[in-house]
Amino acid sequence: MLAGDVLLAETTRGGRVESRHYGAVAVVDASGRTVFAAGDVATAIFPRSTVKALQALPLLTEGAAARFSLPDAALALACASHQGEPEHVAVATDMLARAGYDDGALECGVHWPLDGTAARALAVCGQPARAVHNCCSGKHAGFVCLSCAGGHDPAGYVGVEHPVMQTVAHVLADVTGIAHTHDNQGTDGCAIPTWAVPLDALALAFARFATGQGLGATRAEAAARLRAAIAANPFMIAGTGQFDTRVMEALAPRVLTKMGAEGVMVVALPEQGLGIAVKCRDGGVRAAETAAAALIARFGKEDSPVLHHYMRRRLVNWNGQPVGELRAASALAGDCLPETAS
Amino acid sequence: MLAGDVLLAETTRGGRVESRHYGAVAVVDASGRTVFAAGDVATAIFPRSTVKALQALPLLTEGAAARFSLPDAALALACASHQGEPEHVAVATDMLARAGYDDGALECGVHWPLDGTAARALAVCGQPARAVHNCCSGKHAGFVCLSCAGGHDPAGYVGVEHPVMQTVAHVLADVTGIAHTHDNQGTDGCAIPTWAVPLDALALAFARFATGQGLGATRAEAAARLRAAIAANPFMIAGTGQFDTRVMEALAPRVLTKMGAEGVMVVALPEQGLGIAVKCRDGGVRAAETAAAALIARFGKEDSPVLHHYMRRRLVNWNGQPVGELRAASALAGDCLPETAS
Repeated sequence: MLAGDVLLAETTRGGRVESRHYGAVAVVDASGRTVFAAGDVATAIFPRSTVKALQALPLLTEGAAARFSLPDAALALACASHQGEPEHVAVATDMLARAGYDDGALECGVHWPLDGTAARALAVCGQPARAVHNCCSGKHAGFVCLSCAGGHDPAGYVGVEHPVMQTVAHVLADVTGIAHTHDNQGTDGCAIPTWAVPLDALALAFARFATGQGLGATRAEAAARLRAAIAANPFMIAGTGQFDTRVMEALAPRVLTKMGAEGVMVVALPEQGLGIAVKCRDGGVRAAETAAAALIARFGKEDSPVLHHYMRRRLVNWNGQPVGELRAASALAGDCLPETAS
Repeated sequence: MLAGDVLLAETTRGGRVESRHYGAVAVVDASGRTVFAAGDVATAIFPRSTVKALQALPLLTEGAAARFSLPDAALALACASHQGEPEHVAVATDMLARAGYDDGALECGVHWPLDGTAARALAVCGQPARAVHNCCSGKHAGFVCLSCAGGHDPAGYVGVEHPVMQTVAHVLADVTGIAHTHDNQGTDGCAIPTWAVPLDALALAFARFATGQGLGATRAEAAARLRAAIAANPFMIAGTGQFDTRVMEALAPRVLTKMGAEGVMVVALPEQGLGIAVKCRDGGVRAAETAAAALIARFGKEDSPVLHHYMRRRLVNWNGQPVGELRAASALAGDCLPETAS
């Protein structure tokens, strides 16, 4: 772990700790005041898919959503890391069709649906994996729409010099407050550029997204529209059994969450005016989920079975027998940690 | 991480470290002398599937292999965490048939093949997942054979009081030198009991397995037979694209490896008379593989493309573009770390 990182979550087996996850968390309000922080929040981290809702703001501010009459499900899918289930694929295909394209225009790469049932069902129908099954296909379909609405050929839209990516990068730098340089640039899993930002800057960006404060009127309106679209379509954001979908089915619009690869998680709490960012230093998604659930309970003042489940989750073997648990660190959960796993 | 744990491996993106894995490693000879150790090797950890070869020793010492004329592929599969590919399923089914059973006798639970291609192929044939696809089905088929050879009804063989599990537990305690108590007992993913042991004791157990020293003549002969069976059947131990299979296809019988869940890995180096054990504290399999490759290169004095690959692995996105790397900590790899990722 980095110096100063803290325990986020641990697993047990037979009453003994089996594995431990360390990292950092930041809870920030829209004025930039840190409400709570633990671990190294200053070192820049790649936000990965947590910033998809910020990358989707131009769909509204640049007129693409209006031009192609994108429904709320499409706006939600543009913010999603989905599991490639039929509902996701249908919406992504529809988005592309509205712009006059099919999934041949997508530059995100091809993989089988992440949902095993969906992958097997596709194979049973004799169909191959396509780009539209890629977990980022909604975001990329949004980029194609954005390109067409701006009068640009979408070809090459993943490149840092393409007008679409310039627009998206500009929004990210503005909302996080972190300049984009060669030094903090990398390439994301779906081929677009990504820039590392300190964890507290990422939390601030989602406090702004949660409230509209500091965004300016046009982006604030776009953020409100995206929040509503996400809250109305939690299945679009992830899919069957996934953290974001389960938490938002229970708690949206008061709580909005988004996972990212390598153990990153963001939360927007509009009623509290807070943004939360979590980085599990080892990249462990399970720990980011567990820590986020604890912070939602504590700082969102939410008391819900789905948070109890993710804060203190029973681990079972293939026969369904309990073998241990995955639980949030008490330093994060405070009084919110349930007494037993569920 | 635990106090004293060390960096095992890290990932980069765009030249910047993205995630870090900490843990412990122990390299021990058959006399119990620690050749190299880093991190907390004293805290007991659950060895998970790394000890399958030790659990398979009674197949030979108790006469089950002879009674049912188990071929080498079956002995290897008894030591495996396989991907549920057709070759694995065929051998597990054959093992059960030799004892007069089918996979209804397996008590390991049911899951779809871990190999995606195998899972989809099964679905295309209209077949459901069965216990024989469970990654532990070979070990469990071995337990059924052991039960029958001993004249015991296999029903309930996963229970700690069943004669088969008593026999297996006795071997584990003997070879690791660690007593089994209520305090260090847990339940493994496939329903059998498991006992936590210090990492250096786990490494010692595999130095003994590598050499036969300290096992007694009968168990030493059984270990030699299992080593030969594993070395001749690396595909049986894991499957397509898996670390154990790839490393042993290149380096067995000089190098034998076995992964376990939650970031545990063991290595037996018969020519050097060494056993190696790795625990990635956060449970990260990728870090355990990376660290093990570095320790094999360094302490096994092996120089091989497959080790270079796992010590310093290129990470690519869904388009196949390089985005960063996963590399072993230089404190583990010493002079063996390649200069570039492959």
